[in-house]
Amino acid sequence: MTAIRVVAFGGGHGLAASLRGLRHAAGDLDLDITAIVTVGDDGGSSGRLLLERDALLPVGDLRKALAALACDDPVEQRTAELLQYRFAGDDPLAGHAVGNLLLLGLMEMLGDPVEALDHVAAMVGAQGRVLPMARHAVGIEAEVLGADPSRPGEVVTVRGQHAVAVALGHVEAVRIEPVDPPTPPQAIDAIRDADWLIFGPGSWYTSVLPHLLVPGLAEAIVASPARRLVTLNLAADNETSGLSVADHLAALRWYLPGLRVDTVLADAKWVGEPEPVHRAAESLGARLVLAPLAVADGSPRHDPESLGVALVPVLGAAR
Amino acid sequence: MTAIRVVAFGGGHGLAASLRGLRHAAGDLDLDITAIVTVGDDGGSSGRLLLERDALLPVGDLRKALAALACDDPVEQRTAELLQYRFAGDDPLAGHAVGNLLLLGLMEMLGDPVEALDHVAAMVGAQGRVLPMARHAVGIEAEVLGADPSRPGEVVTVRGQHAVAVALGHVEAVRIEPVDPPTPPQAIDAIRDADWLIFGPGSWYTSVLPHLLVPGLAEAIVASPARRLVTLNLAADNETSGLSVADHLAALRWYLPGLRVDTVLADAKWVGEPEPVHRAAESLGARLVLAPLAVADGSPRHDPESLGVALVPVLGAAR
Repeated sequence: MTAIRVVAFGGGHGLAASLRGLRHAAGDLDLDITAIVTVGDDGGSSGRLLLERDALLPVGDLRKALAALACDDPVEQRTAELLQYRFAGDDPLAGHAVGNLLLLGLMEMLGDPVEALDHVAAMVGAQGRVLPMARHAVGIEAEVLGADPSRPGEVVTVRGQHAVAVALGHVEAVRIEPVDPPTPPQAIDAIRDADWLIFGPGSWYTSVLPHLLVPGLAEAIVASPARRLVTLNLAADNETSGLSVADHLAALRWYLPGLRVDTVLADAKWVGEPEPVHRAAESLGARLVLAPLAVADGSPRHDPESLGVALVPVLGAAR
Repeated sequence: MTAIRVVAFGGGHGLAASLRGLRHAAGDLDLDITAIVTVGDDGGSSGRLLLERDALLPVGDLRKALAALACDDPVEQRTAELLQYRFAGDDPLAGHAVGNLLLLGLMEMLGDPVEALDHVAAMVGAQGRVLPMARHAVGIEAEVLGADPSRPGEVVTVRGQHAVAVALGHVEAVRIEPVDPPTPPQAIDAIRDADWLIFGPGSWYTSVLPHLLVPGLAEAIVASPARRLVTLNLAADNETSGLSVADHLAALRWYLPGLRVDTVLADAKWVGEPEPVHRAAESLGARLVLAPLAVADGSPRHDPESLGVALVPVLGAAR
């Protein structure tokens, strides 16, 4: 059986949930997974390493994707658990995940981020590959209406992925800096050769959309013969407050007018009234698939297993 | 063919050279290697982690031993190289080896130093096992005659492995604190079941002798039916200045009167006049084996390959 080549775009937890789900639900389906990860993170441990050590890339989201792809062997699973282990306390190491320091060291040692990521992938027996969206860190900025509560009618420029993600108000526009960062050729090749491109779930403006703003990736995405699937978020977060589910889809089209979509996957319960979502999907050329995707405790988080169970039949379906 | 079970005692570079040499020169000989590593290091990255994070053990020498045992597969060799990679610069990470942070994280995560060491051994495909001499950090203290150059006739107490290792003057006595640290049962078992116990090369007072000062280890060493080999240093360093090669051997006997030795290995060129060394070896019940052990550039460092080539026939010889 030929492998189905899947490229998954995203950032932190949402991408990791998709990758975990795909890996576990694949069953007889031979999935060849490439994760292309946003590199706009400027907060937490990743942000400190950018600032204090002039790190090439923010490593936290890359680390999460690698851990999600780790194979089930107990040794590799323990290595993945170690990557995710975060130092507690209040000394200079506190707050850093071991995997961030390991990726940083490898990138410094090898000088090539993709070689470093491929090595960590080998260390955890990753069932797939993890690539950065750009070869160096990218800044994320947004024009946000009402970011300053004392001036609710005013548009304010908010700089930095973290600040945008937690900003109050309504994101009017998002952009990256530099506007045309260098993309790894391996990412372009993977998009070109893919059977499926998967977008979301994740923070829409700071994890999902940034890929579409990178000219090299955008061009490869539009040109790829792959089918495309968008997994919608369960609920709006700070950065998308006021944005309807249909607005999420419209935003993809707004930032990449050439984007065609084949399937939109949404949670049957969280999506609310399905009609506007159906219409929004249709306007992208996509059919809407509703399935249970959320964790059982009622919080707006995707359950990796349910996500996988919903994704795999779509990816495996004949064209 | 039954494996020959070798337990190698030591600290930093000397132990690593022995392990590397054994691994490469073993040839058809099936060596089952256990390294038991001094845990008195209070300097550098290890010392900072003890101080700032209350680390259970100094990890630097443990890391060096693990890297030395890494298998030749390119992935595992690169992981070993990463363990040894040291952050440069002047930020809070500077000076730490990646492997130190990785071992620290694993020990915190698992709570058990031996489990942590076994996991890193698996990560590098180690051809052997690395164990700490004690289950927590041990202090090293020495009474040093003339440590203070302004009072040359006076005995001064010097505290800390690093301070002892670089102290001027003549070490009169060395001790550990606490006097009876808990030893890992795995180390006791390895000593009991060994075919060979190997001591040295390495900083005599701070890497080689400390094992003999741990009551649990000393008892197991004396009781073990294994043959014993001592590899002598090439030249005196600060802590052994004024100590003859024969004095090195006498020191072993002084700190562990029950110690019997079968073979003393020394470099043919660096040993100088062999007669006193022959006599010192004989007084421990040992025969002296002279072989080229040093690196070619004339500096007093053991060449791992030469060390292995000299060690392997001795270990493989019938009793």
